[in-house]
Amino acid sequence: MPQNIRGYAAQSAATPLAPYSFERRDPRPDDVVVDILYCGVCHSDLHTARNEWQGTRYPVVPGHEIIGRVSAVGAEVSRFKVGDMVGVGCMVDSCQHCAACDQGLEQYCAEVPTFTYNSKDRQDGRMTYGGYSERIVASDKFVLRLSDKLDPKSAAPLLCAGITTWSPLKHWKVGPGSKVAVVGLGGLGHMGLKFAKALGADVTLFTRSPSKEDEARRLGADHVVLSTDEAQMKAVAGRFDFILDTVPQQHDLNPYLATLKIDGVHVLVGLVEPIDPPVHAGNLIFGRRSLAGSLIGGIAETQEMLDFCAEHGISADVEMIDIQDINDAYERMLKSDVRYRFVIDLASIDKAA
Amino acid sequence: MPQNIRGYAAQSAATPLAPYSFERRDPRPDDVVVDILYCGVCHSDLHTARNEWQGTRYPVVPGHEIIGRVSAVGAEVSRFKVGDMVGVGCMVDSCQHCAACDQGLEQYCAEVPTFTYNSKDRQDGRMTYGGYSERIVASDKFVLRLSDKLDPKSAAPLLCAGITTWSPLKHWKVGPGSKVAVVGLGGLGHMGLKFAKALGADVTLFTRSPSKEDEARRLGADHVVLSTDEAQMKAVAGRFDFILDTVPQQHDLNPYLATLKIDGVHVLVGLVEPIDPPVHAGNLIFGRRSLAGSLIGGIAETQEMLDFCAEHGISADVEMIDIQDINDAYERMLKSDVRYRFVIDLASIDKAA
Repeated sequence: MPQNIRGYAAQSAATPLAPYSFERRDPRPDDVVVDILYCGVCHSDLHTARNEWQGTRYPVVPGHEIIGRVSAVGAEVSRFKVGDMVGVGCMVDSCQHCAACDQGLEQYCAEVPTFTYNSKDRQDGRMTYGGYSERIVASDKFVLRLSDKLDPKSAAPLLCAGITTWSPLKHWKVGPGSKVAVVGLGGLGHMGLKFAKALGADVTLFTRSPSKEDEARRLGADHVVLSTDEAQMKAVAGRFDFILDTVPQQHDLNPYLATLKIDGVHVLVGLVEPIDPPVHAGNLIFGRRSLAGSLIGGIAETQEMLDFCAEHGISADVEMIDIQDINDAYERMLKSDVRYRFVIDLASIDKAA
Repeated sequence: MPQNIRGYAAQSAATPLAPYSFERRDPRPDDVVVDILYCGVCHSDLHTARNEWQGTRYPVVPGHEIIGRVSAVGAEVSRFKVGDMVGVGCMVDSCQHCAACDQGLEQYCAEVPTFTYNSKDRQDGRMTYGGYSERIVASDKFVLRLSDKLDPKSAAPLLCAGITTWSPLKHWKVGPGSKVAVVGLGGLGHMGLKFAKALGADVTLFTRSPSKEDEARRLGADHVVLSTDEAQMKAVAGRFDFILDTVPQQHDLNPYLATLKIDGVHVLVGLVEPIDPPVHAGNLIFGRRSLAGSLIGGIAETQEMLDFCAEHGISADVEMIDIQDINDAYERMLKSDVRYRFVIDLASIDKAA
C-alpha cells in the first residue's frame, strides 16, 4: 500500500508553499524508507519553487538536505537497518552504468541523475518529492550513513552545502600549504571556510561586507579581503592557488582571477548565467589560470565528507525553523538574513498550519 | 662598438613597415650574437605594429620566430660557439629569480619577461628590436639549439606558433588515448594538429570551412567537425578531453565547452578580449569542466619541443617571402591566405627596397 505523506509544496511559481499530501511508493527491494527529522533549506529549493531555473513541474515539494531515521528497508538492503540515522542529499538514483557513475561521479551521470525533487523517478516515471515532508523512500545506494558523533540538526546542510564545497576542495587537492580564498559568506561559503581550514589551507574570505570579518575568522578565515577595496585586492594579486566562488548572482570574476597564482583555479559552484561582465582571456592566459565549475559531489565522496565532519567536529551553523515558517525563511534567505542555514524541524508538521 | 643593423620597422600605427637602421648593443659577457637567416611572421607582429594591443613604442621592429647562426659569443658563454644554428623566440630575458623563472616558466615571470621586441631591456633600459633584421643579440639562456635534422626555414615558426601549441598539450598531459580537438586552422592550429597527432592523441579539427577537410587530414586530423553544423556539434557532445582553441578573434565558446567530457579542459591561446558571447557557467558546472589560458612556453620546454620536432620530423608548413613583401604578407594574413606561416628570408635584405 503506498504511504500517504504530509509535506509542503508550491502549487505554482507565484504561490507560497503550503501543506500538501501525497503518496510515497512502497519500498522496492533496494529501497530504504526514512522518517525525516530535519531538512536544510537550500537556495535551489527557492529557485525551483519559483521556477527561476525553468522546468519546475508543480506541485513541487523541495528539500534535499535530509536527515532522518530508517523506518523500513527493502528485502535486498543489507547496509541499513531500522533505527539507523541517515542522510539523503540531492540525488536519489542514477543510471549506475555510465562512465561517470562508474567513477563515483553520479552527479555527472550521462543519463542525468534522478534528483531528490522535481525529477522523474527513472524506474516508475513518477515525480520525486523532497524533504519538506515527513518521510522519503530512496535506493540504498543513495542513502548516507550518519555517525552518532554528528548532531543531526546541524548535519542536514552537509548533504548539499557541505558536499558542494567539499568536492571541489578535494578534487583540486587543497591541503596544507594551499592558499585558498572563498568568495561569499552564506550557506556554502561558511562551509567552504570550515573545510578549507580543516584541510590545512591558509584561508581568505573575499567579502563586500566589512561587518563579516569577525564571523569569518570564527569560521576559519585567516584573512579577510574586502573585494570592493581596490588596494586590498591589489595587495593579494597572484596570491591564491584556489578560489571557491559561492556567490549565486552575476558578479565580475576578473578581479578575483587576478588574485590567482600561476596555474591557479577559480571554481564556480553557483549558476551565474551567463557570466557577465565577461571574462578577460588575458586573466587566464597570463598565468595559465583556469575557470572551472563543480556540481555537488558523488555519493562515495559525500560519505567521505560526512565521516570527515564526524572526525573533525564539523557541521553547519544552523537556525531551526518550523515548517510553517518556510515562506518567511525564503524571504529572509533572499536578504542573506540567516547564519548560515535554515533547517526545518519536521516534528513541527504535527502543529496546526 | 655598437653594431649598426638593417631591419624593417613601423614608425607609427598607421604606416607600413619600411627599412630602418638601428644599433645593437655590444655583446655582454653572457650574450650570443646571432646572424638572422629566417624569421616567421606571427599575428602578434601585426597587432603590435598597428598598436592593436596598445602599448607599442615606435619605431617597432617585430619578429620573434628567429633562426640564425651564431657569429660571436660573450666571454662567459660556453653553451654556444660561432657557427652554431640557433633559435630565438618571444623572450630574450627574464628576472631569473622569481618562482615562475625557478620553475622554467619564464613566460610568466613575476617581473614580466623581456620580450624580443617592443620591450625594455632589463639591464640597459633600451628598447628591444626583433627578428625583421639582420642580427640579434640575446642572453645565452634564451637562445635555443637547433638540431641539424631540422630545416631552418620551416623551423622558424616553432619558436612561437610551435611552443604556444606544444606547451598546453604537454601541460595538460595529452598523449595516447587522449581525445583532442583543435579549433581553427591557421599558423597555430596547423601546429596543434601535428603535435597532438605526434603525441598519440585522437585528433579532431573544428572548422567553419568545409574546404579545409583534406588539408586537416593531411596535417594530422583523424576527424573534422564543421562547427557551423548543429547536428555535427551535437554528435560530438561530451567527447573531448582537451580543446586547443587557436582562434584569435571573439567567438562563442559555449558550443565547444559542450563537447568536453567530464573534467575536460578548453584552453585559449589567443587573446579574445573580452570573451563574448559570455560563457554559461552551466557549461563548466555540469561536467566539472575548465576554461583555461596558456601563454607561449618556457625556455627549457621550447628546447624540448625543438628536440621532439627533430626526432619526429615535424616542422611548420611555410611560405617564404622577401622582407620587402612584409606589408603584403600582413594583408594576406588578415585574409587567412597563407599555408600556414610566412617566413622572411633575411638574405633578401640586401635587395633594393
